[in-house]
Amino acid sequence: MTASQVSETTTPRLIPPTDSQTRVSKFMKELQDQICQGLEQLDGISKFKEDAWERPEGGGGRTRVIREGDVFEQGGVNFSEVSGETLPPSILAQRPEAAGYGFYATGTSMVLHPRNPYIPTVHLNYRYFEAGPVCWFGGGIDLTPYYPFAEDAHHFHQTLKETCDRHDPHYYPAFKYWCDEYFYLKHRQETRGVGGIFFDYQDGQSQLYKGPDPKGTAALYSNEVGIPAPKDWESLFSFAQDCGSAFLPAYGPIVERRRSQDYGDRERQFQLYRRGRYVEFNLVYDRGTIFGLQTNGRTESILMSLPPLVRWEYGYQPEPGTPEAELYETFLKPQDWANTDYSQLAGLS
Amino acid sequence: MTASQVSETTTPRLIPPTDSQTRVSKFMKELQDQICQGLEQLDGISKFKEDAWERPEGGGGRTRVIREGDVFEQGGVNFSEVSGETLPPSILAQRPEAAGYGFYATGTSMVLHPRNPYIPTVHLNYRYFEAGPVCWFGGGIDLTPYYPFAEDAHHFHQTLKETCDRHDPHYYPAFKYWCDEYFYLKHRQETRGVGGIFFDYQDGQSQLYKGPDPKGTAALYSNEVGIPAPKDWESLFSFAQDCGSAFLPAYGPIVERRRSQDYGDRERQFQLYRRGRYVEFNLVYDRGTIFGLQTNGRTESILMSLPPLVRWEYGYQPEPGTPEAELYETFLKPQDWANTDYSQLAGLS
Repeated sequence: MTASQVSETTTPRLIPPTDSQTRVSKFMKELQDQICQGLEQLDGISKFKEDAWERPEGGGGRTRVIREGDVFEQGGVNFSEVSGETLPPSILAQRPEAAGYGFYATGTSMVLHPRNPYIPTVHLNYRYFEAGPVCWFGGGIDLTPYYPFAEDAHHFHQTLKETCDRHDPHYYPAFKYWCDEYFYLKHRQETRGVGGIFFDYQDGQSQLYKGPDPKGTAALYSNEVGIPAPKDWESLFSFAQDCGSAFLPAYGPIVERRRSQDYGDRERQFQLYRRGRYVEFNLVYDRGTIFGLQTNGRTESILMSLPPLVRWEYGYQPEPGTPEAELYETFLKPQDWANTDYSQLAGLS
Repeated sequence: MTASQVSETTTPRLIPPTDSQTRVSKFMKELQDQICQGLEQLDGISKFKEDAWERPEGGGGRTRVIREGDVFEQGGVNFSEVSGETLPPSILAQRPEAAGYGFYATGTSMVLHPRNPYIPTVHLNYRYFEAGPVCWFGGGIDLTPYYPFAEDAHHFHQTLKETCDRHDPHYYPAFKYWCDEYFYLKHRQETRGVGGIFFDYQDGQSQLYKGPDPKGTAALYSNEVGIPAPKDWESLFSFAQDCGSAFLPAYGPIVERRRSQDYGDRERQFQLYRRGRYVEFNLVYDRGTIFGLQTNGRTESILMSLPPLVRWEYGYQPEPGTPEAELYETFLKPQDWANTDYSQLAGLS
């Protein structure tokens, strides 16, 4: 036995149970059902319409879209379960052990575009991969407000933190930090919104984001970001399930608080302009979108995340002292939103 | 002298004159002036506003935007001249000889979004690179109609063909074919519009697109696509200049023909929907956009190409027998537009 073989056999791998695919895809479908039911109740008027589809290369999904509701101008919740001969190069670069193997992937994703500019857009995606000797969980949830309400950002993060803390006290700071890094528009030097949590390639070992920290956000969490203990498959699956269930309690109360708040053309125009950033992020950076387009996915389901109406304006700058300026100065920078002491927020007036 | 050195010295390279950068950047600025002047005359109401900018890493540019005109809802014409320490990986993969050298790049680019849905959107970009031992010209022009008028597509292509033919009879078929390949949205299985001409890495030797032919367009040109004779620097520069000057005669008459044609909400909504494809192409595929974002370019100037108002709609399909369906069936597939015998067009009703 060579040293390299020793090293390989002593690295513990995440071992999925034999019924892993059945169990995870069942959960992903139930998550879609639970979310759609909750959102229909929240909206009060519109119902989701479903398209079931099959993918020629293997697998399929069900895409559900809600439109012209009382709350939601457009929203989509997509379940998919696909298999294929080889993962795209962008994923193989992260998981070279999967090269030469077929893959299985299942997940649920959601993007909601409310009509009222005081209600934030929200995104959720949880996914599970198996490919040869490796398997992993990934996903997250993040909030994109158009107008700055610190109490909304706090409630959202506090709900996610409580969920994470039930599993490992290192999770929230690590995955909140990762979310700030991932949902960052480099070309705009802005976060997409107030973030949430994000994790990828969770195989029980590589728990933490180890990339660069171009914006100094690590300093916010340096006392808290630790190394979560190694996890087995059941622990990670249980964590993913709890994360999925945290969405409605994290988002619903924000919708209820803002849905009757009057707005005018100014707020609508700013919302349409800011939606442009969502398009830029999804088409330039988003891993789920790029994975879908690279694997010959169903385009209408992948791009269901794009807003129903969007505006671009050359050289826009918010007027100093306005709520729009406060969004840029405070809400589009990483902040410790789980902390209730809002006076600690950088740039909050 | 080793065999490899012999091989290098016997490969002819494009030799730029000592004042190449001054001459090309002067032309690119004059092209911007010529185009802006012509478009202001065409619009009749609005004028371009200019932002001059500098790039911290070297170079700068002048961005000109026209808005709320009689013809143009929004349009931008951008000149830039930049230098840097290293080209981005996507370009070095094509020109490995440039690795380890600094680079110089100058170019003019333009995108116009007319308000009347019967007037096509149009894009132009001409650029010139020098990096260590290599230099090259690239660029092109392409037309994206919202409604199907074969005579407009013919006029546009015929003008480009005449320009190309004055330089080399192989140019038009080769570069028309390359344009169909490049401005193709794989995830939609659509061309961006009726195309035009496109070429890249023109260094006097590698004249032709040699990529795959996934849509069988080569068959349209198999008798015409030949190998253009090797070119020197002056010939290529002269060709790029003529291509630039061909824009106003290629596009102006189409604007004049369509500007008074009445339209309603149906046509406006379809235009906003189709503008989404422009966004998808520019953010997912466009080399100029990706080069700009990768080289820390000026974001507002790079994304000036994005439309002022855009709509996405899940699962849209045109109704059979309508002009919208004809656009999909005929105008979003490669066609021999320079041929006046429209009955030859695949799918034209």
